[in-house]
Amino acid sequence: MASTNLTFSSRDVHRAWLATQAILPAGFRVGTTSLSFIPAEKPKPAKMNLTLVALDRPTPDFAAAFTRNAFPGAPVIIGRRRLDEATVGALVVNNKVSIACAPNGVAIAEHWCEAVAGALGLQGRQVLPNSTGVIGWRMPVEAMLAALPDAVASLGQRSLLDAASAIMTTDLYPKVRRAKVGRGSIVGFAKGAGMIEPNLATMLVFLLTDLAIPRADLRRMLLPAVDGSFNCMSIDSDTSTSDTVLLLSSGALPCPDPASFEQALAQVCQDLAEDMPRNGEGVHHVLRIRVSGAPTQALARGVGKSAVNSPLFKCAVCGNDPNVGRLACAIGKYLGPAAPDLDLRNLRIRMGGLPIFEAGSFHLDAKLEAALAAHLTQAELYASSAPIDGVFRPPIDYPPHERCVEIEIDLGVGNATATVIGADLSHEYVSENADYRS
Amino acid sequence: MASTNLTFSSRDVHRAWLATQAILPAGFRVGTTSLSFIPAEKPKPAKMNLTLVALDRPTPDFAAAFTRNAFPGAPVIIGRRRLDEATVGALVVNNKVSIACAPNGVAIAEHWCEAVAGALGLQGRQVLPNSTGVIGWRMPVEAMLAALPDAVASLGQRSLLDAASAIMTTDLYPKVRRAKVGRGSIVGFAKGAGMIEPNLATMLVFLLTDLAIPRADLRRMLLPAVDGSFNCMSIDSDTSTSDTVLLLSSGALPCPDPASFEQALAQVCQDLAEDMPRNGEGVHHVLRIRVSGAPTQALARGVGKSAVNSPLFKCAVCGNDPNVGRLACAIGKYLGPAAPDLDLRNLRIRMGGLPIFEAGSFHLDAKLEAALAAHLTQAELYASSAPIDGVFRPPIDYPPHERCVEIEIDLGVGNATATVIGADLSHEYVSENADYRS
Repeated sequence: MASTNLTFSSRDVHRAWLATQAILPAGFRVGTTSLSFIPAEKPKPAKMNLTLVALDRPTPDFAAAFTRNAFPGAPVIIGRRRLDEATVGALVVNNKVSIACAPNGVAIAEHWCEAVAGALGLQGRQVLPNSTGVIGWRMPVEAMLAALPDAVASLGQRSLLDAASAIMTTDLYPKVRRAKVGRGSIVGFAKGAGMIEPNLATMLVFLLTDLAIPRADLRRMLLPAVDGSFNCMSIDSDTSTSDTVLLLSSGALPCPDPASFEQALAQVCQDLAEDMPRNGEGVHHVLRIRVSGAPTQALARGVGKSAVNSPLFKCAVCGNDPNVGRLACAIGKYLGPAAPDLDLRNLRIRMGGLPIFEAGSFHLDAKLEAALAAHLTQAELYASSAPIDGVFRPPIDYPPHERCVEIEIDLGVGNATATVIGADLSHEYVSENADYRS
Repeated sequence: MASTNLTFSSRDVHRAWLATQAILPAGFRVGTTSLSFIPAEKPKPAKMNLTLVALDRPTPDFAAAFTRNAFPGAPVIIGRRRLDEATVGALVVNNKVSIACAPNGVAIAEHWCEAVAGALGLQGRQVLPNSTGVIGWRMPVEAMLAALPDAVASLGQRSLLDAASAIMTTDLYPKVRRAKVGRGSIVGFAKGAGMIEPNLATMLVFLLTDLAIPRADLRRMLLPAVDGSFNCMSIDSDTSTSDTVLLLSSGALPCPDPASFEQALAQVCQDLAEDMPRNGEGVHHVLRIRVSGAPTQALARGVGKSAVNSPLFKCAVCGNDPNVGRLACAIGKYLGPAAPDLDLRNLRIRMGGLPIFEAGSFHLDAKLEAALAAHLTQAELYASSAPIDGVFRPPIDYPPHERCVEIEIDLGVGNATATVIGADLSHEYVSENADYRS
């Protein structure tokens, strides 16, 4: 990946680098505002950000991918409908309330889209709604309507950095990635990671390009890009009710080379997919599992997902403890039921480049254990330290580097491969999701 | 379940109750000993317990169920072979090292069985080996051979309580359950829960009965009993390489009523399955999810498993936070891909007996939120409190009560049901699996 293995000496260096990524493509306007409201469910003031991205001219060229959760949020239900519309002219994002499983959610969200459209000279069906936050709470639509004029007035920023910050819930830092294609670019920004009170970590990804690519091609290109990036990533195995990836082309510039565009799209998606666990709730280590030698790609991905979703292995990694037996357990718990007849005699595992498993068993000694522990320590973002009040908080707000715990699993039976990105499991994760209660 | 909803005023009361459960059935002898050794992989003294259960006469009547993990431990590989033997005469258990994925594990474990058999006047193939502990480490067979005479000399105890303690790794308390059938009984003891250094939580369950039931009937009865109990339970979703359930009949007493025996077997398995998460790593709350109205039993179980394995929902429960949106998310993330065409309009959810979800949405207000929080608090075993050194430890060693967080999910589309038992996710879990590193 082009932009991995960066090292950031400070938050300022990271922000400066993000600014180079966050350049708004031609044909879009962006703006943000914030508002306060009192939820009906927990009568205590809450804060919400609104983010608007408007096209200079409505575009027929857009694509989307949505969560497969059986309880999709109202914005997802509406977004699916929008795929049949002739054009879209804007997207709007709110954090704090996900508008999922809430009474009359779809009708209320459509009403909101109508209001946004009215303020922008569009029709309601030309607005793509997006929400992230508590599931089951009602949308504070009156407070949102009151703040809408401010959001519209703020349109016109040249950078997406404020927007990338405004869509966050408890993400530690904004996530923006850019790839140039000829004179144009693809810029993606994303949220997904943390929570500080009853919120669900939702993934929202917005991909904007000024390059003209017809709708059918955008939709054909988006699926494999998403499949090879966000669908190969897990922070905690909880598929949100709101996960959404939107891709909008303003068509402001001709696209001389669609193949390069497709490659750049995959790159931006992969980079954002790796940013997400690095900013995941309480994450100390990002895991990169490269699976090879599999009979099918689905099986390769399943092996990687089982490894990055194993709570025991995740905890061990968090503690810089090379408890590789838990890795074998995680691989085996998936392969046992999924491929009971697979011949595993040629399976090999490497960690940090070091061979640890072959011919059906580990070959461990004190020296190898020390080398594996050093690899884990070198990939650590920070270490937990005992808090005075028992509530663990990450001591960093920007990641110091982009290193991963590197694991290679060669099943030795086929040619299919997959790379899966994941995260460890720490006290800070538990604190974010259990201790910050009201 | 007969023996749930007990309340223990103190550890002594619980131990006294356990003693009433741990009465050894006729026709068995039991003994334990311990030993020290230096692992090759981490050269630092370690302690291991050996536990022997010997039959007065070898029996043809035994049954077993084993892990489906693709990397089974040597004892599981050997145990599967033993199913074809004419009789078995003893089982032997060690903790500390699981003898899974270790070089020459099977050959070394068979050598160990030969030695145990020799000391008991049996043949190696009449011994059922069992191990739990670190995956990938070598079996300290010389130290185990040196301790074997002590283990044999200790045979003759009347209670299984010492054995139930000796097979533990970092389980907080021994788990023993008994059901009487006529003049005879079924007594089960189990381990599974915790770890204190690189160990894998392994489930080992031993069911002993003095009632004569032919081998074929035992094997027919064991599968549904395991399926409705241990296979409906999850602490952290990590299927061990060593999970084993053994059922041995000494045949000392005639069985007048096989149907009552089968019912009692299911009861003992269900009780032990609920004991296990109650003693799970750092568990504050046991979850009981009753799923009904499902089109198939597999789907009912899948819904329950998805709920108890959701890290976000588990953390919320740990914090006594009724973040029920995460429960819907967990149900939906399973049903979306598993049953995309299921009609969910009639799905209803209750928690602590209170309706919270129907007609596609939650119906929450501040009063209901408070009642749900009270239900969670009432089911809590203990609360985390800030440790001086940052390493969380459970303040209890025996559970004060047997209450559960009660959740009912009625899918409203069929007649299939399942009850799934699970646990929350706490700082103590992370500490046990990340902080206790060498």
